[in-house]
Amino acid sequence: MELHFNEDGLVPVVVQDQKTKDVLMVAYANDEAVSLTQETGFAHYFSRSRQRIWKKGEESGHLQHVHRILVDCDEDCLLYLVDQEGAACHMGYRSCFFRTIDDEQILQKVFNPDKVYANKE
Amino acid sequence: MELHFNEDGLVPVVVQDQKTKDVLMVAYANDEAVSLTQETGFAHYFSRSRQRIWKKGEESGHLQHVHRILVDCDEDCLLYLVDQEGAACHMGYRSCFFRTIDDEQILQKVFNPDKVYANKE
Repeated sequence: MELHFNEDGLVPVVVQDQKTKDVLMVAYANDEAVSLTQETGFAHYFSRSRQRIWKKGEESGHLQHVHRILVDCDEDCLLYLVDQEGAACHMGYRSCFFRTIDDEQILQKVFNPDKVYANKE
Repeated sequence: MELHFNEDGLVPVVVQDQKTKDVLMVAYANDEAVSLTQETGFAHYFSRSRQRIWKKGEESGHLQHVHRILVDCDEDCLLYLVDQEGAACHMGYRSCFFRTIDDEQILQKVFNPDKVYANKE
């Protein structure tokens, strides 16, 4: 199948915990990041802010082991089913979706980002 | 909280079945679609191809009752937790993610799109 990348050469990637089925995060991938994910079994993305490929967990150690990659009907969005080491969110939560739109917090932090990311930038 | 819409005024929306936790689809919403979703309790999106707001199920009857809207850490992505009437995918599958990236089909059709969308365009 032919993935349809957007004008920036990216597709959005939904990341779901394969065991709990929690949605952990949404990131973006280019063609190379998808290939690296398939070749290595670890989730790779393309950082729009840093304009480079990144391997999830390369700084934090919070790697994502990708079990399956699904594609949507329009072939312009991916779903990575993963085993998440540590936590997905750089702010210290298991999932990036830790709040409602009314700002009610529904998750507690599972790590201290100041420690995990210290001296690693 | 202040949602960060992209240059087209949109945010991606991941749609998850609140009971099964299956990821059903990914669509896009503008500010008005988010407001309509909050006001009515039914999922609304912005169609990039048709350049207009749409209520999911307005043609097919496959409405999405939105129980909760979550926001990610960067405030640039939403997660709608829904009860899905019928099926989410316009191609007849319960979820738009019915195939792997290697083109292995993992879901069967639950409706015939030719019948559901006939004479409704």
